[in-house]
Amino acid sequence: MALVVQKFGGTSVANIKKIKNVVQKIIREKKAGHDVIVVLSAMAGETDRLIALAHSASESPDEREYDSLISTGEQVTVTLLAIVLNSMGYRAKSFLGFQVQIKTDKAYKKARIKHIDTEAIRKELKKGAIVVVAGFQGVDDDNNITTLGRGGSDTSAVALAAALKADHCDIYTDVDGVYTTDPNICNKARRLDKISYDEMLEMAITGAKVLQPRSVEMAKKYDVHVYVKSTFSDQGGTLVTKEDKDMEREIVSGITYDRDQAKITVVHVPDKPGVAAALFSPLSDNNINVDMIIQNASLEGFTDLTFTVSKKDLKEAQKIVEATAKAVGAKKVEVDDQVAKVSVIGVGMASHSGVAAKMFTTLANEGVNIMMISTSEIKISCVIQRKYTELAVTVLHDAFGLEKKK
Amino acid sequence: MALVVQKFGGTSVANIKKIKNVVQKIIREKKAGHDVIVVLSAMAGETDRLIALAHSASESPDEREYDSLISTGEQVTVTLLAIVLNSMGYRAKSFLGFQVQIKTDKAYKKARIKHIDTEAIRKELKKGAIVVVAGFQGVDDDNNITTLGRGGSDTSAVALAAALKADHCDIYTDVDGVYTTDPNICNKARRLDKISYDEMLEMAITGAKVLQPRSVEMAKKYDVHVYVKSTFSDQGGTLVTKEDKDMEREIVSGITYDRDQAKITVVHVPDKPGVAAALFSPLSDNNINVDMIIQNASLEGFTDLTFTVSKKDLKEAQKIVEATAKAVGAKKVEVDDQVAKVSVIGVGMASHSGVAAKMFTTLANEGVNIMMISTSEIKISCVIQRKYTELAVTVLHDAFGLEKKK
Repeated sequence: MALVVQKFGGTSVANIKKIKNVVQKIIREKKAGHDVIVVLSAMAGETDRLIALAHSASESPDEREYDSLISTGEQVTVTLLAIVLNSMGYRAKSFLGFQVQIKTDKAYKKARIKHIDTEAIRKELKKGAIVVVAGFQGVDDDNNITTLGRGGSDTSAVALAAALKADHCDIYTDVDGVYTTDPNICNKARRLDKISYDEMLEMAITGAKVLQPRSVEMAKKYDVHVYVKSTFSDQGGTLVTKEDKDMEREIVSGITYDRDQAKITVVHVPDKPGVAAALFSPLSDNNINVDMIIQNASLEGFTDLTFTVSKKDLKEAQKIVEATAKAVGAKKVEVDDQVAKVSVIGVGMASHSGVAAKMFTTLANEGVNIMMISTSEIKISCVIQRKYTELAVTVLHDAFGLEKKK
Repeated sequence: MALVVQKFGGTSVANIKKIKNVVQKIIREKKAGHDVIVVLSAMAGETDRLIALAHSASESPDEREYDSLISTGEQVTVTLLAIVLNSMGYRAKSFLGFQVQIKTDKAYKKARIKHIDTEAIRKELKKGAIVVVAGFQGVDDDNNITTLGRGGSDTSAVALAAALKADHCDIYTDVDGVYTTDPNICNKARRLDKISYDEMLEMAITGAKVLQPRSVEMAKKYDVHVYVKSTFSDQGGTLVTKEDKDMEREIVSGITYDRDQAKITVVHVPDKPGVAAALFSPLSDNNINVDMIIQNASLEGFTDLTFTVSKKDLKEAQKIVEATAKAVGAKKVEVDDQVAKVSVIGVGMASHSGVAAKMFTTLANEGVNIMMISTSEIKISCVIQRKYTELAVTVLHDAFGLEKKK
């Protein structure tokens, strides 16, 4: 008998009919003799509806109230699922963040789980109940409701699996696993049977939407075996797990892209200590995440600083940066909202040379100009003009031979 | 400086525009220097939508899950109102049942408040915050979410006013007070400036929808001054309070009606101990409320038993009663789903004779047959054919001279 966590995303619980479909997957595990904990997202579109409601109430809604408001989406799906399960004769009980006591810090809209009290859940499992937990939400030490950020239900599921030492955590979604790249823009994309935590993390960070990056970090930290599976089919699936011998043979595992990028350049900045801090601190104070940062070699005491932000943050970032640029004596600020980031990811990269060269050559051969480059042990990212995104992904997928299993 | 509880119903917070309108009434109290606690219902129609959702998941939804589901309606309105208030520069904080700790018993769907912890609210008031509390909901000792039954937000508001010793509790609704009868069916209906708890309670029980009966009971118990006011106008208002000298002059204060009635007669029942218990216990076990009960004088050891139930319960009640009737040897069961109850209410009735006679004569003069009668110290109710409801109300309103203030 195993302990299994099953997480279903918004498209899997988009309406009552789909919720009743999901029930089949749950019952199958239960009938196989396993203890089952189910974690749900809100119905597809519901969180967006609630966010729009908050913004119709105020341009910048109070964050405590915002979190309490949008957490209702998961409250609706978990209670509905528990109602369906009970009506079919299964003992089932829904748990909200405060009922489990999923304790988080106080960072509204992007809270981090600090501790999960497993007592109440264990008690219900012992009684034979299917436990249905609202994803995405927790409470801080003062019982204020917090939320974990977009895709936070993945993190809820992995955190519960870790806290309860579950045998595995199955993330059910509308695709049947993790692909070498997005099948929607590259028809040669191939599903991976296995991927390492580190690669999955880089893929999630650089644009693959299948798992929230934080959930992968947590899975790695607590060694939770995560299966990405399809709600709508029993085929396929990808196991996210520790690196093993098999994986090492693959130099590149996947290509990702992120179209939600914008580029800001501060031109002719005095190159002296404290300037970077002066530029980036006010952005961080305003919760604007800066992704890639590049600084040219200094010329006669001046340099250019280029960095990327989310497209949605561009307007606010520009306002803030223009003020600081003036204060530090920079010449001007240039922005480009027509960029994208394309990344090549693979654990094998660390011990194989030539991956970067191959990537740059492949893009150059297609006339795609590289504006910025950033690298890690297992990833190379390039910022390019957005219109070349699909082209870049497709040619890189070919160049690294990803359609064939090695 | 006073402490004021303001409660707004579903039509008052039906959308963002209306919520922003409600804010004006709140700010006015705050600017006058008062401490303000706001209690809200769900947006008009939202609770019904959630109930429909529950019933699409199961014909008889698990009650614990049902309560947790429908409590989200109030969570949405309180957070939205707090967002609006904060964006206007007022410190405001929403509280859910578990955050206040509004402790109830475990009777899902019709829970009773046992205790309210006032500490968290007092702390916020001391900081100058407007406290916005979700009506209709509480938690039991195990932190399961419970709801208080239809109109339960009135009870939440009065209970909070009692627990916090508020100076008054203002119930804002879509009418501007308590009327001598329903203005929609009698154009001579007159708004009352004051009404006693007992009269208000009888009116609420016998069909006036302006306040939940339980909220009036609680207001009486803790002597909470309740004002019924209009959200959409500053005119009018009715004070519900202790009986005073003024009120005693009015023999009859109001006429109510309830069209949601059905009548069941068990014909030729053996008149022996235990028969009534045998008939009514299974109804109560199935949560069917029996209202009026009449038993004819016994004739040769047999009698007829007639009683009323809510129209919505008729089908189930009939099934249950037919089974018991057979078991106790009654001849047959007759039902009538075309009845209504009309009631005349007034504290003066207790010390004035002739009210009943006047009521019966007035109805008889219009050819309205009285099927059942029930009386209390301050109320006389008659069951009549439903089609005569409006006629009965109008002629009784005239007969007792209710259009003129005495």
